Formats: sequence, C-alpha cells, structure tokens
Amino acid sequence: MKKTFLAVFATLIFVSCTEKKNSSIISTEDTFINKKDSTVIKHFFNTALSEGVAYEWLRDLTKNIGGRLSGSPEAQQAVEWAEKLMKDEGFDKVWLQPVMVPHWVRGEKEVANYTINGSKINVPICALGGSIATSKNGVTAEVIEVKSLKEVEELGGKIRGKIIFFNRPFDAKLINTFKAYGGCVDQRYGGAEVAGKFGAVGTIVRSMTLSIDDYPHTGSMGYGKAKKEDYIPTAAISSKAANLLSENLKKHPKLKFYFKQSCKTLPDAPSFNVIGEITGSEFPDKYVVVGGHLDSWDLGEGAHDDGTGVVQSLGVLRLFKQLNIKPKHTLRVVLFMNEENGTRGAKKYAEEVKKNKEIHVAALESDAGGHTPRGFTYKGNDSNKDLFMSWKALLSPYGLHDWSVGSPGADINPLMNETITLSGYRPDSQRYFDYHHAATDTFDKVNRRELELGTASMASLIYLMDKYLDVEPVKK
Amino acid sequence: MKKTFLAVFATLIFVSCTEKKNSSIISTEDTFINKKDSTVIKHFFNTALSEGVAYEWLRDLTKNIGGRLSGSPEAQQAVEWAEKLMKDEGFDKVWLQPVMVPHWVRGEKEVANYTINGSKINVPICALGGSIATSKNGVTAEVIEVKSLKEVEELGGKIRGKIIFFNRPFDAKLINTFKAYGGCVDQRYGGAEVAGKFGAVGTIVRSMTLSIDDYPHTGSMGYGKAKKEDYIPTAAISSKAANLLSENLKKHPKLKFYFKQSCKTLPDAPSFNVIGEITGSEFPDKYVVVGGHLDSWDLGEGAHDDGTGVVQSLGVLRLFKQLNIKPKHTLRVVLFMNEENGTRGAKKYAEEVKKNKEIHVAALESDAGGHTPRGFTYKGNDSNKDLFMSWKALLSPYGLHDWSVGSPGADINPLMNETITLSGYRPDSQRYFDYHHAATDTFDKVNRRELELGTASMASLIYLMDKYLDVEPVKK
Repeated sequence: MKKTFLAVFATLIFVSCTEKKNSSIISTEDTFINKKDSTVIKHFFNTALSEGVAYEWLRDLTKNIGGRLSGSPEAQQAVEWAEKLMKDEGFDKVWLQPVMVPHWVRGEKEVANYTINGSKINVPICALGGSIATSKNGVTAEVIEVKSLKEVEELGGKIRGKIIFFNRPFDAKLINTFKAYGGCVDQRYGGAEVAGKFGAVGTIVRSMTLSIDDYPHTGSMGYGKAKKEDYIPTAAISSKAANLLSENLKKHPKLKFYFKQSCKTLPDAPSFNVIGEITGSEFPDKYVVVGGHLDSWDLGEGAHDDGTGVVQSLGVLRLFKQLNIKPKHTLRVVLFMNEENGTRGAKKYAEEVKKNKEIHVAALESDAGGHTPRGFTYKGNDSNKDLFMSWKALLSPYGLHDWSVGSPGADINPLMNETITLSGYRPDSQRYFDYHHAATDTFDKVNRRELELGTASMASLIYLMDKYLDVEPVKK
Repeated sequence: MKKTFLAVFATLIFVSCTEKKNSSIISTEDTFINKKDSTVIKHFFNTALSEGVAYEWLRDLTKNIGGRLSGSPEAQQAVEWAEKLMKDEGFDKVWLQPVMVPHWVRGEKEVANYTINGSKINVPICALGGSIATSKNGVTAEVIEVKSLKEVEELGGKIRGKIIFFNRPFDAKLINTFKAYGGCVDQRYGGAEVAGKFGAVGTIVRSMTLSIDDYPHTGSMGYGKAKKEDYIPTAAISSKAANLLSENLKKHPKLKFYFKQSCKTLPDAPSFNVIGEITGSEFPDKYVVVGGHLDSWDLGEGAHDDGTGVVQSLGVLRLFKQLNIKPKHTLRVVLFMNEENGTRGAKKYAEEVKKNKEIHVAALESDAGGHTPRGFTYKGNDSNKDLFMSWKALLSPYGLHDWSVGSPGADINPLMNETITLSGYRPDSQRYFDYHHAATDTFDKVNRRELELGTASMASLIYLMDKYLDVEPVKK
C-alpha cells in the first residue's frame, strides 16, 4: 500500500492524547470520581503502547533463562527473576509461596527411525511429559495407526506387542484453534493409558498443531489408573513425520518403528508461586488477581506459553502504578508454578486462599498466547454476567469483540465459587499451536505491540472488575 | 495451556460440516435459491481452511520470483506466472491488459556512514523509489534533524548545503497502524521536494515502521513541481540508525554524514495488468471485481505487500469454482501492475472500463497484508451502505468485526462513481509495518490460516455483493 491510499487515513488522524504526560494526570481521586472509564482505558493503552516494558521483560525471561520446566534449575531462576522484578517495581508486598512440584526430566535427546527398502527414515520425536523411558535399547515394533482411543478399545488384544500411532489431526475448519486442540488432545493425554492396557509396547502421537512441519510438540500425559506394569513409553512425532509415516504404512504395513527415550520422573521438588501486591485503598483484605504461569515446557523458550502471560500480568500492576491508580481491592499478581504438568501451583494457591479465608472478588488469567487481542471469557454467577458483558463496549475499539462465557484457564479455575468472577484473556488463536510446546515457541514469535495491547486490555478489565465488582453479586 | 483447560472446549465442539464433500453439495440452483447465506459462507471458510492452496501459490510467487518492482524482469515473470495460474485454474477468460509503467532501478547497494571520535558508524539505508542518485562520490554534509516538512519551510535558507534528516516517528498510541503511517509518510513522499527547494543536498528519512530494527524501508517519493535542478537524492534509514543518529547529533551537531546511491529512472517500460473472469450467469456484461497488486518493492519478496492480496484474490475465484457457485455478474480478478510507484495499472484499468462502458457493480481490494481478518471498509452511496453493514452479522463469527466507511485502496479507488460499491479488506494491522517495503517482507511472515481466513472472508463479501447489489441503488 502506498501514499495515495493513506492520504485518506492521514485526514482521519485524531490527536488521541494531547493531554499531559500520563503519569501525572490521573490522581487517585480523579481516577475514581471524575474520569470516565473510557478515558482511563485510553491511558492504559497509550501508556502500554508508548512506554511498555513487557517486551523487554519477555526478552530477558526467554533469552536469559529460556525453557523452565517444573523442578529444573531454569524454573528456579525464573522464580528468582520474578521476585526481583516485583521488588524492583516497588510492589507493596512480594513473596514466594512454597509448593512441591512434579520433577520429570527429558534426559538424552530422543531418537526414532524406521527403514523402508533399505533406507532409514529419521523421525523427529520427543517424549511426552510424564512418560516413562524406553529400555536402553529402545522399542522396536510394528505400528498400528488409529484415529481415536475408542478405536484402540475396539482393537483390544490385537494391539499386543505393537506401537500405537495416534494420528487424528486437528480439525482445520474450526476458527478457534483451541477447539481443534480440545478435539485431539485426548490422544496425547490418555493414549498411552488405553494402549498400555491392551499390551501395546509404546505410543507415538501426532503433534498437537495445525502447522505441517518438522517440530515435535511435547505436552503432558498421564497413566491414569493403569497398573505400573502397564505403563508404556509415549512420544510426540512431528506433523510432517506423521503424514509420511501414515503414507508409508499404507504401502508397508509391516514396517518396524524404532524409538528410544530416557526420560524419568524424579521425586517431587520444592518450588514456588511468585506473588506480588498493590494494597487496596478501600478493601485491603479483598483481592483481585491477575496471573499467568511461570513454568514452561523445556523444548522452546516458553515465549507464548506462557512468558507472555507472565509479563502481561506484571505489566498490569506496573500500569496501575505508572498511572497512579490505586485499586479499591488489593491487586495481586500471581505467577503460578507447574501449570504444564500438574497445576500444583494453582492447587496450592487455592488451598491457601481457602485456609486463610481470603475473599477473592475476581481473577483474570492470560494463558492463550501473546497475539493480537480478541476478547475475554466470563465464568461467574448470573448476576454479574450482564455487567461484565457490558464492558465489551469499552474495549471493542481496541479490537476486543469476542466476549463469551467460557473457561478462564487452568490456574484460576480452582478459585471458582458462588461469588467470584473469573475471566480468561483471549488473543487471536491462529498462530498459537504452530509453536505450542515446541522448540519454536521462542521470543521472536512475539510482536511487541500485540503483547502490549494485551497488557492494556488486561489492565482495563482488572480496573473495571476492581471498580464495579464486589463479593456481593450486583443487584439488578 | 494444557489439558484441563481444554477439556471444557472439547465438550463444546460441534461437528461443523457433517455434510458431504463441499464441491458436490452446492449446485447453482441450491446456492441461490435454497441455501442460506450463512451456509454458503461456512462452506467458503471450511473449504479455504481445509483445502486452500493460496499459501502454496504465495510460496511460489515469493520464493521463485521474489521482489517484482515495475519494469523489472521479476515483474514480467509475475505477469506470466499469474496468467498461467489463471489458465490452469480454468477461468472462463484470461488476458493481459497492456500498460506502460515507470522503470526505476536501485543500482548498487547504497552506502552510508559517519565518523565520531575516529570510529566509523555504518548506517543501513536504501534509496527511496523515484529518487535520483548521488554523484559518484556520494554526498557528504552536516545534518539538520527535523520532524516535519513545515519545519523545513521555517528553516528556509538555513538548510542550504545540508542533509535534512526527517525523524518524526509513528505515533505508537494509534491502534490502527495505518493511521500512524498516514501521519508520517509525508516525510518520505514529499520531504525531498521541500528540502530541495531551499538548497539542501540530500534528505534521509526515518523508516516508516513501528519496529526498532536495522532494516531500511523503501517506498515511493516524488519531486512534485520542483525544478529538475532542485532534485536531491533521498534515502530511508533504519529506525535504529535514526535513533542513534538523533542521539549523536545532540552531542556532535557538526558531524558529517555520507551517503551514496546509484539509482536511476529509465524510460517507461511495457507491462500488464493480469485479468481473469468467471462469466456471470445473469448479467455477464456487468462486473464484480476482486484484486490486489502484482508488483512489489525490490528489497523483500513482496509477501504481505501484496503477494497475499494477489493469492487471496485468485483464491476467491477458485472457491467459487470449487463450490460450483455461479456468480450472477461476471466475477473478475484484476492483478494490478505498478501500485507501488505510479498506480499506472489502476489508472489504465479505470480508463479501459470507461472507454468500454463496462458497468461495474462492486470491487474489493486486498492490500493491507495477510494477517488475521478484522473487517472491511465501505465506500459507496448511502443507499447501499446499510445493506453492506448488515453483512457484519454474517462475518463477525469469523473475526470480522470492524466494518467502517473508509478508503478501499489505491487500485480500485479510480473506479469510484455514483453507483459502485467499493470495499477494502482489513486484516489486523499490528505487524504490517514491521515488514512493509523492507527486506523482511518475506514468505515466512505469512501464516497459512490467517491468509486463508482472508480468502474466505473476501469470497464471502464478493458473494454477498454479487447476490444483493446491482448498479441500481437498493431501494429502502
């Protein structure tokens, strides 16, 4: 596009912020008494877009620490990084909440291959989180391709001694890629349990992605109620390798697949949720929470999952401080540990809330990537729902049009009760599963503006929830 | 994000297309008589997302041809590529529309530097399209930094013998980045004309981008009504280099900047718009047009600008054929030549329309990148506006919420008259200017799903415009 087209735009430009420097114009009193919500929201966006530092925080977290699987030294570094950052930002209270987490380690890089007409085809695989290792010599067996757990149940004893290849792809026709993920992830999480029951010797699972590439995507799996002796090793294979294997199996149904992995589960390890607060001006003993998860898978840098949620959540508190907006309730950022393979941090946090009888008014989670904003989900009682949905009018000018009832996210879900309002931040989902749990989830996939638009969107929702919600349902 | 979160989604999944294979279920009769618009639109999206080939077309165009500046061998290759593709797709009519285009060539790679305290700082620059060369020895002069053309007018004679450095950055606070571009691009297009008038020896212009990086962004400039002897060479410098130069000028206001470029304007060259048609079933002599521009700047691969618009426009006609939807009016794809530095193709096309008295009902342009869909602009008479805007309800489920009155784009704007309806496809704009006119506008920046969502969005709008619009304004 060029000049001619944009001459038109030029005439449309409105001076959006001719007022004085953001940080000086909103006093506590102004904010809550005189300023319109739309004005406050505009300031959140202006400040995030022109002065935001979340992108640089993310660079630091992803490039200097990187992947940070629960129990790893990197996870501990991330805890220390977050604690220091919160203190440097001058939050009123900063502390670590101890929690024991699963400690699974990948071990040596996995190997997989098979041979057709004398030529060896190497297969990009990675062990799924929680899987057992193969024996030292690996596993070699014929492969049965299936599209569902049900199909395995139907095959029953016929799968004994075989490797089960789960190859049901995402439904590309679903606009929301999380729905496509939701329609496939049972293969990854539960495939090994079912296949092990009938005597399979291993499972390989098509990577949970819409991209056709050479990267295996890891993720959590579980053996459920299986007996220990029925545990079998399970790995993800890249989507391209899955397509090729499927083709080759049609021509060579007896081909022998080999894979080897040396992952193991160590004893639970000590770790922490990292928590910071800005004390509430009216109700210091009631809480509004914003958060994401600090841990990530080990293959990439944990950028979109969930480095972006971490820095956006921290950015929300920074925005409140920059604009000198004092929340009515205590505004708490919680960076949860172990979302990926146990949600122990989430459970621990909810337990402590209950034990200490802390009243939580609202909570917002960002764990769907750092792409351009699309909206928020709502989970709460019917009384607050209409009020919540009415805020769409304030945020749709910033691209947030999708407001729907839905799950907020794994880390704040355990806080659910009759009075709380929960929400999940929903950025655009098209690219998310290209990187999700893979080596490609790196800093360069995040766009600074998209990230900061998210920070401002979240700050706006937190501001509205803090201002208008209380533990008493709003009366109609 | 992991399993727990998505179990919820899994339960929400609806089988969106249990019907038979798309291509067999919609007959001509069905489409226009029995099928609801929402059903047809759903089929456009299903087909594009699961069987679309626009991404592979784009790979071919960008990787095997690449940048294709008007008059270049690559532009001619792109013409032949598009003509062959249209014929291979079986469009009813395919032809080339001759047009003479400006032929500017960059010449050798540009060089720029300055020295501070004995150490040389190299500066990434590129000549702006249409600029003259420097002398063989380059230009060396002191630098005056300005933020606007007006400032140059005010300085007047004081700039004689100097290099003018236009350094007004994009306004990061504007949500729509095209507005930020519109607020800055006068420096690039008109800076040299104004500075040359007062005796400056060259201008360097901050790249038109929100990204802070090392890539200079080219783009068109003009000397307007300047006398030939007042023409001065002009180049873009990277945003990072602009920031550094600005800092250095504060400490070293007398520093001497050197740059050299060998670009030149050759005689106009013969080229073509490439046009293909599906003949209308009811009104074969009335036209609905969809298009983008085939030329691009030379530095990158012309991926988002405007390879995506080209393959999306071609994809629209392919979708009509795949689904066996016969348009009422003749559906014409026009791939315009020379949008970037002359819009000669656009002018030529509009001239021919006028000369041949072709009745155009509607036209849609895609030239704002290939990112995730956001909406459409409307330009037309008041009678059709409400109808057009009512289609938002059909497309917002696919993420198209932004429907506004605005410019459709440089290539179809010349078609404007009292009866036609013009529209511009509007994808998300956050990343667009990171790549725009720079070496970074490459295939890897395009996401397959985002691209195909655009194709389906455009096909949907074309379908609706073809079905409901005519040259007679709709009666209320």
